[in-house]
Amino acid sequence: MTGIEIIDLCRELASCSEEPGRTTRTFLSTPMHDVHRILGDRMRALGMQIWVDAAGNLYGLFGDPGAASLMIASHLDTVPGAGAFDGILGVVMGIALAATRPAIAIEVVGFSEEEGVRFGMPFIGSRALAGTLDSPALSRRDRNGVSVAEAIRSYGLDPKQIDAARISPNVIGYLEMHIEQGPVLDDARLPLAVVNCIVGQSRFSVTFEGQANHAGTTPMQLRQDALTAAAEWILKVEEVANLEPGLVATVGALGVSPNAGNVIPGDVRASLDIRHSSDDTRQRCAAALLNAAHAIASRRRLSASDDLLLDQPTVPMDAGLCDLLAKAVANAGLPVHRMASGAGHDAMILAPLVPSTMLFLRSPGGISHHPDESVTAGDVDAALHAGRLFIAELERSHA
Amino acid sequence: MTGIEIIDLCRELASCSEEPGRTTRTFLSTPMHDVHRILGDRMRALGMQIWVDAAGNLYGLFGDPGAASLMIASHLDTVPGAGAFDGILGVVMGIALAATRPAIAIEVVGFSEEEGVRFGMPFIGSRALAGTLDSPALSRRDRNGVSVAEAIRSYGLDPKQIDAARISPNVIGYLEMHIEQGPVLDDARLPLAVVNCIVGQSRFSVTFEGQANHAGTTPMQLRQDALTAAAEWILKVEEVANLEPGLVATVGALGVSPNAGNVIPGDVRASLDIRHSSDDTRQRCAAALLNAAHAIASRRRLSASDDLLLDQPTVPMDAGLCDLLAKAVANAGLPVHRMASGAGHDAMILAPLVPSTMLFLRSPGGISHHPDESVTAGDVDAALHAGRLFIAELERSHA
Repeated sequence: MTGIEIIDLCRELASCSEEPGRTTRTFLSTPMHDVHRILGDRMRALGMQIWVDAAGNLYGLFGDPGAASLMIASHLDTVPGAGAFDGILGVVMGIALAATRPAIAIEVVGFSEEEGVRFGMPFIGSRALAGTLDSPALSRRDRNGVSVAEAIRSYGLDPKQIDAARISPNVIGYLEMHIEQGPVLDDARLPLAVVNCIVGQSRFSVTFEGQANHAGTTPMQLRQDALTAAAEWILKVEEVANLEPGLVATVGALGVSPNAGNVIPGDVRASLDIRHSSDDTRQRCAAALLNAAHAIASRRRLSASDDLLLDQPTVPMDAGLCDLLAKAVANAGLPVHRMASGAGHDAMILAPLVPSTMLFLRSPGGISHHPDESVTAGDVDAALHAGRLFIAELERSHA
Repeated sequence: MTGIEIIDLCRELASCSEEPGRTTRTFLSTPMHDVHRILGDRMRALGMQIWVDAAGNLYGLFGDPGAASLMIASHLDTVPGAGAFDGILGVVMGIALAATRPAIAIEVVGFSEEEGVRFGMPFIGSRALAGTLDSPALSRRDRNGVSVAEAIRSYGLDPKQIDAARISPNVIGYLEMHIEQGPVLDDARLPLAVVNCIVGQSRFSVTFEGQANHAGTTPMQLRQDALTAAAEWILKVEEVANLEPGLVATVGALGVSPNAGNVIPGDVRASLDIRHSSDDTRQRCAAALLNAAHAIASRRRLSASDDLLLDQPTVPMDAGLCDLLAKAVANAGLPVHRMASGAGHDAMILAPLVPSTMLFLRSPGGISHHPDESVTAGDVDAALHAGRLFIAELERSHA
């Protein structure tokens, strides 16, 4: 397959949607049957063996069932109003690489769920391979009260067989090709990047409590304005992130109360999302920012409180496999760029199970989770070329 | 009546409410009948002539119908979940002053509506005295689709008689006693203030438009974060207000989009409320703040836009009547403090019609529009004393 053919197939698959006119495909929804059929037909035509596990993951095995294999995978679900490439491009790339008929066995997997839209819980597909899709996870319900287990049964699968979905010991490596979903490669005019790690992240909720009061009758010096305090802190978050290389820190959500034009804000609740490839750096900066919140509040005669919502360590990719991938990129005549992934991917779940690596493809304009999400045919061809050379290197090292 | 009796009556009237357990009394709602009955009975007992005009304002006239009179008034409606004193205290004070049987005629008025809660339009009561309660105003509808005119009819009044509610030419002065609803007097440990003017105000909506993006994959230097821009501007608003004596400037409402913890804010809409007794100062500072918004946006590669929602000039009180009131306060043995009112009052509507003045009573803790709103019996006695001396001065000056 060429880059153009791969892009065309992704765009065709984008029409498999729960919503007319835009691409929305959540865990085992009806249009997923069409995706399985289209991709299954493609893989069958290559002589691959096809099956769907009890978590709804689609498999295609090229090569001998008992042989050492490379898993090439990504996810088939989407966010609401998605683009055509997030996730599914990596599955189609796997099929395109199997089509080159490599000597090593290739296990292509399309994970049923990565985004977490339907159940507010991401990685349902890949967690089945890790054996962590446990009973509480299977009991989780969507907005209509349907549980994960019920959704599996409705799709024609048997949730009791979940254990059989654990990754096979034959798999010796995991490769995920994915669009970057950020502006770094586009800004640097680079087609590809080898992903070193998936950065750890902390999420906090920080609340500033002052005193709501009349905007007309309360002189400036007698105010305890929670929003001016929050504003000072938001700029501090930006300043700390600007000074610490590789750190991203974001206040994305803000709840102002009572949120009326003529009332001084009495309290403000702010989110903090902070990510860095070094867990130490992340935790040090997070602590500094929480201290700053309390110091700002105290100087302004307010109170501040904070809640830790998430503390997820960095997941390193396999150094050896990343080096092999970097070598393949170089051998394809392309500049080698290494970077951390700021977003989560199925590779996070697979990395503790099997040596894993990821290849990012440039996202034009940094646009993702949007119908304008794209990739260029040239970049897809480049990734395909690097992928073929990576498989060749892997065959050599396992020969 | 003593301060304690006045406070007791206000608290009794606070139980006339649309909602059990808290005080909410909007334009001509059912409990207003009880307020009219209780206050009407009090005034009738003093030999006053009682009537209700077509806008639902309650009148009590002490003295000869054709004689020159002092109007003492405030409003009878409340915000939802109100305290017991905002507005109605001024009406009860009027009755208490009429009870001293002064030589000059006293026209006590309880305005039907000042807060603007039911129809999103304040001053329905006092606007009838100005003859500006016109047909568009009478056609305005509440949340249940009931118009002002229909509410008037439901209360048993005739909206066609609105014109007869215009202020009588007999009225030679207007006095409104009102709680300060701010912390200035409490902070300065003063019981009363003569109000020079009701400050003008401007309201704007300011929007910062950047680019929503992934909080994990977008490096700091490639962001166009609308919230960090807004935060910088919010601090600028605070700084300008801190530097300009008498200015209050407030960002009270903020709408962040998409407002998700893991997404860089793409656009932020902020309110700006800015007030000063000098219209020139207010307009100069407002212009500076709008310029600052555009400069901040431009430096951060965002765009900004602003909409003017309100531009209301300062309404001065009558200098002669304010001097008379200040003299009365001094003669009562109290410190004379003069201040601007940062909030709107019915006196704004009356001032263009008749020489007007206002007396503020200290709000303990600056608390208002809240069940904890209070006044002290000592301050009410002080205001009553000053009011008696003010009436005596007025009688002397009109003798």
